[in-house]
Amino acid sequence: MSNSGRIRIGMVGGGPGAFIGAVHRIALRMDDRFELVAGAFSSSADKSAATGRELGLDPARAYASWQDMAAAESELPAEQRIEAVSIVTPNHVHHGPALDFLRRGFHVICDKPLTVSSELARELVAAVDQGEQVFALTHNYTGYPMIREARELVRGGGIGTVLKVYAEYLQGWLVDPLEDSGQKQADWRTDPARSGPGGALGDIGTHAFNLLEHVTGQRVVRLYGRKHSFVPTRAVDDDAMALLELDGGATGTLCASQVCAGRENGLRLRVFGTLGGIEWDQENPNDLHVYWKDKPRELRRSSNGYLGEAAQSLGRTPAGHPEGYLEGFANVYTAFARAIRGESDLDDAFPTVHDGLRGVQFIESVITSSEQDQWLDFPA
Amino acid sequence: MSNSGRIRIGMVGGGPGAFIGAVHRIALRMDDRFELVAGAFSSSADKSAATGRELGLDPARAYASWQDMAAAESELPAEQRIEAVSIVTPNHVHHGPALDFLRRGFHVICDKPLTVSSELARELVAAVDQGEQVFALTHNYTGYPMIREARELVRGGGIGTVLKVYAEYLQGWLVDPLEDSGQKQADWRTDPARSGPGGALGDIGTHAFNLLEHVTGQRVVRLYGRKHSFVPTRAVDDDAMALLELDGGATGTLCASQVCAGRENGLRLRVFGTLGGIEWDQENPNDLHVYWKDKPRELRRSSNGYLGEAAQSLGRTPAGHPEGYLEGFANVYTAFARAIRGESDLDDAFPTVHDGLRGVQFIESVITSSEQDQWLDFPA
Amino acid sequence: MSNSGRIRIGMVGGGPGAFIGAVHRIALRMDDRFELVAGAFSSSADKSAATGRELGLDPARAYASWQDMAAAESELPAEQRIEAVSIVTPNHVHHGPALDFLRRGFHVICDKPLTVSSELARELVAAVDQGEQVFALTHNYTGYPMIREARELVRGGGIGTVLKVYAEYLQGWLVDPLEDSGQKQADWRTDPARSGPGGALGDIGTHAFNLLEHVTGQRVVRLYGRKHSFVPTRAVDDDAMALLELDGGATGTLCASQVCAGRENGLRLRVFGTLGGIEWDQENPNDLHVYWKDKPRELRRSSNGYLGEAAQSLGRTPAGHPEGYLEGFANVYTAFARAIRGESDLDDAFPTVHDGLRGVQFIESVITSSEQDQWLDFPA
Amino acid sequence: MSNSGRIRIGMVGGGPGAFIGAVHRIALRMDDRFELVAGAFSSSADKSAATGRELGLDPARAYASWQDMAAAESELPAEQRIEAVSIVTPNHVHHGPALDFLRRGFHVICDKPLTVSSELARELVAAVDQGEQVFALTHNYTGYPMIREARELVRGGGIGTVLKVYAEYLQGWLVDPLEDSGQKQADWRTDPARSGPGGALGDIGTHAFNLLEHVTGQRVVRLYGRKHSFVPTRAVDDDAMALLELDGGATGTLCASQVCAGRENGLRLRVFGTLGGIEWDQENPNDLHVYWKDKPRELRRSSNGYLGEAAQSLGRTPAGHPEGYLEGFANVYTAFARAIRGESDLDDAFPTVHDGLRGVQFIESVITSSEQDQWLDFPA
Repeated sequence: MSNSGRIRIGMVGGGPGAFIGAVHRIALRMDDRFELVAGAFSSSADKSAATGRELGLDPARAYASWQDMAAAESELPAEQRIEAVSIVTPNHVHHGPALDFLRRGFHVICDKPLTVSSELARELVAAVDQGEQVFALTHNYTGYPMIREARELVRGGGIGTVLKVYAEYLQGWLVDPLEDSGQKQADWRTDPARSGPGGALGDIGTHAFNLLEHVTGQRVVRLYGRKHSFVPTRAVDDDAMALLELDGGATGTLCASQVCAGRENGLRLRVFGTLGGIEWDQENPNDLHVYWKDKPRELRRSSNGYLGEAAQSLGRTPAGHPEGYLEGFANVYTAFARAIRGESDLDDAFPTVHDGLRGVQFIESVITSSEQDQWLDFPA
Repeated sequence: MSNSGRIRIGMVGGGPGAFIGAVHRIALRMDDRFELVAGAFSSSADKSAATGRELGLDPARAYASWQDMAAAESELPAEQRIEAVSIVTPNHVHHGPALDFLRRGFHVICDKPLTVSSELARELVAAVDQGEQVFALTHNYTGYPMIREARELVRGGGIGTVLKVYAEYLQGWLVDPLEDSGQKQADWRTDPARSGPGGALGDIGTHAFNLLEHVTGQRVVRLYGRKHSFVPTRAVDDDAMALLELDGGATGTLCASQVCAGRENGLRLRVFGTLGGIEWDQENPNDLHVYWKDKPRELRRSSNGYLGEAAQSLGRTPAGHPEGYLEGFANVYTAFARAIRGESDLDDAFPTVHDGLRGVQFIESVITSSEQDQWLDFPA
Repeated sequence: MSNSGRIRIGMVGGGPGAFIGAVHRIALRMDDRFELVAGAFSSSADKSAATGRELGLDPARAYASWQDMAAAESELPAEQRIEAVSIVTPNHVHHGPALDFLRRGFHVICDKPLTVSSELARELVAAVDQGEQVFALTHNYTGYPMIREARELVRGGGIGTVLKVYAEYLQGWLVDPLEDSGQKQADWRTDPARSGPGGALGDIGTHAFNLLEHVTGQRVVRLYGRKHSFVPTRAVDDDAMALLELDGGATGTLCASQVCAGRENGLRLRVFGTLGGIEWDQENPNDLHVYWKDKPRELRRSSNGYLGEAAQSLGRTPAGHPEGYLEGFANVYTAFARAIRGESDLDDAFPTVHDGLRGVQFIESVITSSEQDQWLDFPA
Repeated sequence: MSNSGRIRIGMVGGGPGAFIGAVHRIALRMDDRFELVAGAFSSSADKSAATGRELGLDPARAYASWQDMAAAESELPAEQRIEAVSIVTPNHVHHGPALDFLRRGFHVICDKPLTVSSELARELVAAVDQGEQVFALTHNYTGYPMIREARELVRGGGIGTVLKVYAEYLQGWLVDPLEDSGQKQADWRTDPARSGPGGALGDIGTHAFNLLEHVTGQRVVRLYGRKHSFVPTRAVDDDAMALLELDGGATGTLCASQVCAGRENGLRLRVFGTLGGIEWDQENPNDLHVYWKDKPRELRRSSNGYLGEAAQSLGRTPAGHPEGYLEGFANVYTAFARAIRGESDLDDAFPTVHDGLRGVQFIESVITSSEQDQWLDFPA
């Protein structure tokens, strides 16, 4: 493949057994805006090479470490070297490569949570703010068309003044100590050395937090949090709850749990205002339920002509042809590509390093609130 | 009508414009176990008489006050006087008639919340415990067959050890200051002199609280609550949130709101354990969703032969013939009738005065916690 | 409404083991417009007497046969004798009592299908047309508020010119030869001597047929039908399908089956026109889905202020308090009562003897079409 | 899978304004098994070149016609020329290129319906049967994991002997004469010279027909069809209904319509047997509802470990991460790739040329039955 318009991208992480690496690769292929040409797929040089072979990469560009990749790619001729890097490693290996690649002039798209501490996150914020590179954070759920529709409706005042926000993200896959079996996904996510201080908080709570701020346009200013590990041997939380106050006067709850046996990937957002409300459930992502104070409920569906422009722009198929998680993920990648190519005309088209910082602060705030048994002012 | 087996019942409240009085009357007629023969339907003698006439009562038994009714009925011959009384007044007129009728030897069925203070509630508890009369509290949602099925499943250990409880009751009808228009339902519910200290807390929060203890068989032992009035001129809360700890180790949230514009009567309960979970929504009451850790979800539906005996006993029609709110309400009345007649073989067939006390304590605890900004141990 | 205003009613059928008799009794009690004072509940005098006792009737008015009841009640003083009769027997005992009671001057409410032949049905039509009595047929599904809303919307041109109609009624309870076990409901419904020529066709097909004409206001003018007995020993159809042409130019299908294992009571109607469409499912009867050509779907819910008057008048509780099958049934009884008392101001408030004739013609037409393998013009 | 293992593929059709060409390209990119290297994207040489440029193709391989592409690619060195061709043109341009490319030794993946006549379809069947090339037909809905699960369940006897099949495909986008506006999708689909004799029948009816045979493993042996054009100026049907008999004794209906205003892409399949049934709706494709005669309903969800192997193999993400239309489409492409590479171990992994012939016969049979007003034996 040699589409001169394609952006040459490298990947950090995503080796054998990784779930999210494969997702990122499908997402970047979806709209044909990227060409994956390099990778440091694993901390094992052999595994990185093997993944490179599987993906059909030039063997010279399947690196043994992200440090090697950063150094080597920087030396390649401009028309050959990667333009961007995708970081899909466990949380503790976000900050290092992100900072290094940014400083070397590469665009970066990075998995969430941004870093394992707000201090490290602030370093990245500074690096992005001072540089020219595009930085995107894969809070992929913002890529769903109906989230964009909800956002336009709510931010545009369509449901009146926002009063209540209920955000939840319920999963069940960690109800048992799956990490004891060595299952790769459970293993690093429950190890504070790799996941950072948050377990469910970081893995899924940050998504719910991001989504509620993304849709409402309001910022959490105060929270009371409670975290818990229902699996006694687990070193990080597998459940969290928080009461929230938003800067527009709304209040609400955020629940994140990985011990709700039988629940798959239950990210749900509900927002109610003085005129109506919205409800969205990630497992049926093409549906946006809209409540009205004195009119019938609406079901807005993706890809229809009656949607706002922003929502319409995120669909690839006609109405009734369901698009899902991978398409939502791809929408973040494509917005990233458009920003790199200077095409992006959509405000806030993808989550930024600032959203990433807030996510890390959310983790830290819930933990602190929980430990101190008190409300915390959320960092501005 | 002259079914010698029918229980002669009187009603306190339920005059012109009352919503819940009419509901109680349909509920008591549904299974033909009661005959309404007397009433003090209004604090206005004229209105009480008018309602008596509408209902075809002997004019002599449409009383000007519950005090008159209590006195006069007590004087009637045993085979003629009422055997039970149904109290459907605003909250501040629960304790008085309940105590008086109990002391005079009448069975009592009373609307919730039990009283406007836990002190008064304890008086009723003592009266019931010391007497022989049957006392039922119309936490009518316990009358739904699928709540009974959920209860049996959860209490029987079917979903394992309970870890998480999410209870919510969302309505939207008070998003505006409806009480200013004189609308009768809004008027007394937002007046602390009649509703007691809780607004949404008492009106709907107690239902959610009752349901979660009813289904799980666990008791809330600690809570952190937050109440709020989104309508600034409102003298009681129209919104509340609480974090909960249960005596079996579970934690959870309870959200009650009457400012979620467009929501009708969204009482929903979700309980998750180590093996699976349940989800029930009052607006689709014949469906019980059951989640399993490693099996497909189930949809259990009312009136099917595969249900437990208790759930089956509460259906009047074959599967697929939806029964609703009025039937659930009637199930509480019929259990009350069976208890009066000594037929009841079902343990915990209806909510009791003890449930009522807990409900009032819930209201008070959330208010206190909210005001003191701290966790409270819930009364044992 | 006053107690002295209650209509004295008798019942034919509804003895021990009957399902629909009990339903009728709850329905007539629901709104307190009737008082059941007499009955010929069974062809066994003993059983009739026993049911009378259970219901608290005067033993003298629990008759051994409907003929006895008709004769005896006619002799009672006007202020004492029944005013109306409810006929809830198997199909072959509809025509006889209906005709006799009508001729004696009693109002009649009768279960469907009207009769076991169109010839007998025409006799009833003539008797009703020539008399002054009110005759109602319990196509109870017309009593649902959202069916009334659908009817107003569709007949009022809200969805444009109707093009397509899909009516279905799927059950599974007869997938096995349940009648061989002596189960009472299956026994008579599969016996042509009692059910008439149609099995599923009469039991449920007529409901679907009635509903589609009721909602669209169009009449079926031509049909191609196919009936079948999937249980080989069964003497009547347990499954039927028909292609339909309506007088307004619409076409569609009607499917009725009692061999769809696992389906409960799946009556569903969908109608599409040039501007939009409606979808209603009896198992979720408070929801009316409305499709629009170029607007979001609507979910209209019962008891809301945005509904048409007719739909609103059929609800007893506020929005979100589900009403179901029994309430829908009661709405037919209450409309019958209002017609008897001359209060009825709602056009077509309940199904009539003419609807009954059409239902019988539907059964006969599908059978004839199926046997002759050809389209049939439907009787005008 | 290796990069050098990517299959070089060319495309016929899919130029500017084409909907399905873009879908095919996303589908072939999804799993990285193909590399698009050539195309005859339009009958206009300029447009073909433009599309080639957009896609980053070598300009020499953006051909002015499929004939040119067939000739030129055949001349290229084996390691360079395309191995397979994807045909995404209007229906009348399926047979020509398919036959030619097959005869030249290329694998073919072709859109449905296979051809515009069964005579032409038989030529393709013969060509495929006599050759070594892999031929796949993009009845893409067979690529959904839950269709695969349904198929295994039903074919494996899980729901007992199949009795009833209800297949429907309802859309609304052609309720108006959209073709008069020149809208490209409507234009060719309503022109018999390009679509063939069937309108809705070919465009969507064949999908429903294929799916019901695919899932049940039974073949339609007799049908009675009725087609209609609700838009009077339309030269092909926009609505069709059929009564069906299957070789295993089941009967059912198939409804396909493009005039159901407000419906998006409502492909739905329901199959009932002696033990239970299944229900699947394309607009919620990750849900498979399973009914049981005497057990609770099940909701089986894609990507769960409790599913059969076949269904599991078709998911890319963990449970709860919705996959949709594009992923289902990609599953057909990937099965095609595996067959080309000899990896395929899954029986009936994709629809074949034989399925294509049956689809064309379905179109012709409904039309003939409709015109002759009689049942037709379906070709064996």
